[in-house]
Amino acid sequence: MNQENNLPIGLFDSGVGGLTVLSAMMRRMPNEQYVFLGDTARLPYGSKSSKTIVRYAVQAADLLLSQQIKMLVIACNTATAAALPVLQKNCPHIPVIGVIRPGARAACSASQNGRIGVIATASTIASGAYREAILELRPEAEVIGIPCPLFVPLAEEGWLDGPIAEAVAARYLEPLKSLHPDTLLLGCTHYPLLIRAIRTAVAPEMHIVDSAATTAEAAYARLEASSLLRNTAGRGHVRYFTTDDPAQFIRTGNLFLGTSIRKEDVSHVDL
Amino acid sequence: MNQENNLPIGLFDSGVGGLTVLSAMMRRMPNEQYVFLGDTARLPYGSKSSKTIVRYAVQAADLLLSQQIKMLVIACNTATAAALPVLQKNCPHIPVIGVIRPGARAACSASQNGRIGVIATASTIASGAYREAILELRPEAEVIGIPCPLFVPLAEEGWLDGPIAEAVAARYLEPLKSLHPDTLLLGCTHYPLLIRAIRTAVAPEMHIVDSAATTAEAAYARLEASSLLRNTAGRGHVRYFTTDDPAQFIRTGNLFLGTSIRKEDVSHVDL
Repeated sequence: MNQENNLPIGLFDSGVGGLTVLSAMMRRMPNEQYVFLGDTARLPYGSKSSKTIVRYAVQAADLLLSQQIKMLVIACNTATAAALPVLQKNCPHIPVIGVIRPGARAACSASQNGRIGVIATASTIASGAYREAILELRPEAEVIGIPCPLFVPLAEEGWLDGPIAEAVAARYLEPLKSLHPDTLLLGCTHYPLLIRAIRTAVAPEMHIVDSAATTAEAAYARLEASSLLRNTAGRGHVRYFTTDDPAQFIRTGNLFLGTSIRKEDVSHVDL
Repeated sequence: MNQENNLPIGLFDSGVGGLTVLSAMMRRMPNEQYVFLGDTARLPYGSKSSKTIVRYAVQAADLLLSQQIKMLVIACNTATAAALPVLQKNCPHIPVIGVIRPGARAACSASQNGRIGVIATASTIASGAYREAILELRPEAEVIGIPCPLFVPLAEEGWLDGPIAEAVAARYLEPLKSLHPDTLLLGCTHYPLLIRAIRTAVAPEMHIVDSAATTAEAAYARLEASSLLRNTAGRGHVRYFTTDDPAQFIRTGNLFLGTSIRKEDVSHVDL
């Protein structure tokens, strides 16, 4: 038995949004071990410069590497867009995957007319990373990127639906009306929480996709190809690190993970 | 001539909101020198734990102290609420003032019926610092504190008025309807930008006050009492530090300062 197979998979996000990715991975690979870092003391990343985001991502990855992980998953669209190549270069000995390529794949599979809307943070849209990843898979595609800076604070405030969430969604998604995409990609791990409000602002037949499930699938395929899947039976376990208050992390985190985070599994860390 | 008088006044904020305080100080003391630090790489502070806010505030103050300042102004409600006593203890050799006591004074002067609404970040409201400062000045006052987490991102998105800003204000300020305060204190340096939307959500005769002007007055009084006012004629100058991208700082900063920040006056710094 290879010892390496039993090492945990490391994931990080600027906050708790990436727990939607962790959740999908736990469903796909329930017997793996995980270490999740939420950099809640410095969130959000999405409004900051790419230089700052790269610096934060490198520090987050270093913390996870110190935990002896067998794979690194950047469970944050903003950090993937800004820092994936840097982290791949910094961690040559393990697979490093982000959420953008899997998200692009999900969108390209769902779209029939090749017109794809992408909504994300200002930084992710400005990076052009989704456009690039989509055009690599479907060079004829038309990509409409829209930054939606208020979606993250709306989701964190818990105003997930109702008139205000719908009005914000309508205002951001207005440009889609004339461009007729048939697929909308939620390019931020917070956005799936706002799905009902987003749904009211787009054509009823719109395919709405996100990257959580396809990232879990990509991680599985990558581990399988490298013979790195865990070969011990039984349920896996998750350890959590947060850069701000653990109690606050658990409160918001439960909403995104969909199950309860146990207090004894969460440690505070300064980056 | 005392050399100390010519040292700059240091101010810091989590971002650019504190520039409203700097602006008021420059109007009140146009020939002083200033150093302003905006910790934009880690903003916002208002949703974070007080432990994290104290850590950030101490680092910000240390940077300003290294610039040889004669007074420290915490131009941020959240940081004042969490860290004023710590920073006063850390900087015993210079006056350290925050925006909460001056804001409380403004509200107590404006109110006739003694019922005062305070709107601020979640962290500022949770600290109880405004309640305490108001009750010290007017022990019979009734203080209604309401956290408004979406106001900062709304102001930063530039959605300062119109139906969405008004709907958000109406939802947050709904509890004021039954409590009939005659004064509303804007307990966050971002909120004055939303004044038009806030105005639509409260009784027309409501006094709306903020702490910028009274903080400038308090700083002036404190410098005068210590014979520390600058005794050189001519206009003062401001140097800026930001922890994220200087260009971004200038773009949003101009909105809050009301005048143009020159590129050559802004330096990047890591904290």
